[in-house]
Amino acid sequence: MSPLPTGATIGILGGGQLGRMLSVAASRLGFKTVIFEPGGDCPASHVANFHLQASYDDEDALRRFARSVDVITYEFENIPTSALDLLDSLKPIHPNREALRVSQDRLTEKTFLTDLGFATAPFADVPDAAALDAALATIGAPAILKTRRFGYDGKGQARLQSAGDATQALADMKGAPSILEGFVDFSKEISVIAARSQDGQVAAFDPGENVHEGGILRTTTVPADVPARLMTDAVLLAGRILNALDYVGVMGVELFVTPTGLIVNEIAPRVHNSGHWTQNGCLVDQFEQHIRAVAGWPLANGERHADIVMENLIGDDMDRLPALMADPAVALHLYGKAEVKPGRKMGHVNRLVKS
Amino acid sequence: MSPLPTGATIGILGGGQLGRMLSVAASRLGFKTVIFEPGGDCPASHVANFHLQASYDDEDALRRFARSVDVITYEFENIPTSALDLLDSLKPIHPNREALRVSQDRLTEKTFLTDLGFATAPFADVPDAAALDAALATIGAPAILKTRRFGYDGKGQARLQSAGDATQALADMKGAPSILEGFVDFSKEISVIAARSQDGQVAAFDPGENVHEGGILRTTTVPADVPARLMTDAVLLAGRILNALDYVGVMGVELFVTPTGLIVNEIAPRVHNSGHWTQNGCLVDQFEQHIRAVAGWPLANGERHADIVMENLIGDDMDRLPALMADPAVALHLYGKAEVKPGRKMGHVNRLVKS
Repeated sequence: MSPLPTGATIGILGGGQLGRMLSVAASRLGFKTVIFEPGGDCPASHVANFHLQASYDDEDALRRFARSVDVITYEFENIPTSALDLLDSLKPIHPNREALRVSQDRLTEKTFLTDLGFATAPFADVPDAAALDAALATIGAPAILKTRRFGYDGKGQARLQSAGDATQALADMKGAPSILEGFVDFSKEISVIAARSQDGQVAAFDPGENVHEGGILRTTTVPADVPARLMTDAVLLAGRILNALDYVGVMGVELFVTPTGLIVNEIAPRVHNSGHWTQNGCLVDQFEQHIRAVAGWPLANGERHADIVMENLIGDDMDRLPALMADPAVALHLYGKAEVKPGRKMGHVNRLVKS
Repeated sequence: MSPLPTGATIGILGGGQLGRMLSVAASRLGFKTVIFEPGGDCPASHVANFHLQASYDDEDALRRFARSVDVITYEFENIPTSALDLLDSLKPIHPNREALRVSQDRLTEKTFLTDLGFATAPFADVPDAAALDAALATIGAPAILKTRRFGYDGKGQARLQSAGDATQALADMKGAPSILEGFVDFSKEISVIAARSQDGQVAAFDPGENVHEGGILRTTTVPADVPARLMTDAVLLAGRILNALDYVGVMGVELFVTPTGLIVNEIAPRVHNSGHWTQNGCLVDQFEQHIRAVAGWPLANGERHADIVMENLIGDDMDRLPALMADPAVALHLYGKAEVKPGRKMGHVNRLVKS
């Protein structure tokens, strides 16, 4: 449990923008990073000591990766299980396998949350068409069919306005195991970025209020405009999840605010888009907080010193760059992605709001 | 004069901690960096897209470096002139050659400053022993003999308590062209970190108050405890220096506060140790401000949102790391240097001070 010495090397699975910002945070603490990522010229590789470009089924590369690092973390939860099995036998991985197992599968995740006593959207396992009919009879429509695994940013989802959409929705899943989720009557979505250290210390940043468009996070506003009691509930709830998983690192917990209280939407066992505001709102941001936990360091205090609106720059939003670079209230965070594509997260801005 | 597009590559001469933090700042704006540095495993290489490890007299390497980047900047002013001549013919270099020429040589620098009408310490050119005798007769003792070039952190300096120390002091210069500087009766040293953009916009961060130990910066405190009038004088003075040099980038201007007003100690044509507090005190820090200027972007506003004491971690100060990593008021910035040596800057901390 002694802290990893500065100068040690942290391995990061995944080379996207989250890996990029984790690598920068690691550098602030004097750590080197090695990025494992199949794609070339990935965002994280621009700010890493080494980019090991290989496939997740390349056992030799995985072994070299493990040998070259002192501890392993990741920027996304959909890492192939076989790669994790191998790496786990060679070097410590944080957050742990249980956190990944729970969050990789929507059915496991929702079962875990309800077992802990938290409210979730109504859900049912949908292994086949008969199960979908039964689930619709219980949950009702409208509802949403989602693949149990590998969904993100609204992908792998189909809405059912009525039971008549069942056949098409099931076809959209392309045979993947799925769950049906009922709609929740919520007024807002908020999220908590919480962290847990190797010795069980828990810290949380102030909850932010999220707005999505087309299934992709558009903005996060801090502080969230919700009653103080709900803010406290949200943070305590996140802490209970972290403790239940013996979690080490940062987790994003998405919550719906409803007339009857908070409903847990989903958990992400990693730094989270809705926590990017911490880069300009806190002394230590979510990325460094994650690195501190993974490295066995004490957590930083998550106190917020500014009101901020984080806005994602998606696709053509990059056309606004000339105005944004001249805006004195804006901090830019661009990901160095070579090509602009519709729906692609190219960067984000943190805008200071004078309170 | 159109801004360098995000995704472009910035070349940085020098791979120390300043290059490291410049590289991180460049990444926030989506730029890649290539570091030119003779040493291996240098701090900047840990967070750069590429480290070109070669000597400054390797013309082929310098040409490859220039070809691989869109614009060139540097983290230190003592770059060999022959390397600059070659690079300057191949790619834009910011800050410009004139700024380097002036700041590389203490005699040229002081002459430039007095020509602008600013006060400096009394000084005299010391090409030989006879000139030193003449200089001592005019300036008096105690005084300090300094090499005209290649001095930093108190290196290349000898104090003369009396004229009797002249022979030894001159011997300490090892034949290097030198100047004699008189002592200044100052109450404080402050510094201004100022920036100028390609279209002549000037911005400055709040002046900080510096304390040195053994010739090395120990702490910088913002705000400096000096009258508001002197703060304004300091910023205006820095702006005049930048304009006079048609400067592009960030400059550090060290000033002595004396009973008769400000005296310019020295200028550094680069990001500056006394500006590290901006990393945790401003929306955009000195490193990003420099990158913005070099890339032809508009400058950010330098507004300060916190009172901060920056403290360098030098040599054995690293033994304090366990306490510092647990201090909730401290932001750590470690440089990833493999070996702790006496007098070596290993990192710094920015400590929030509740005002």
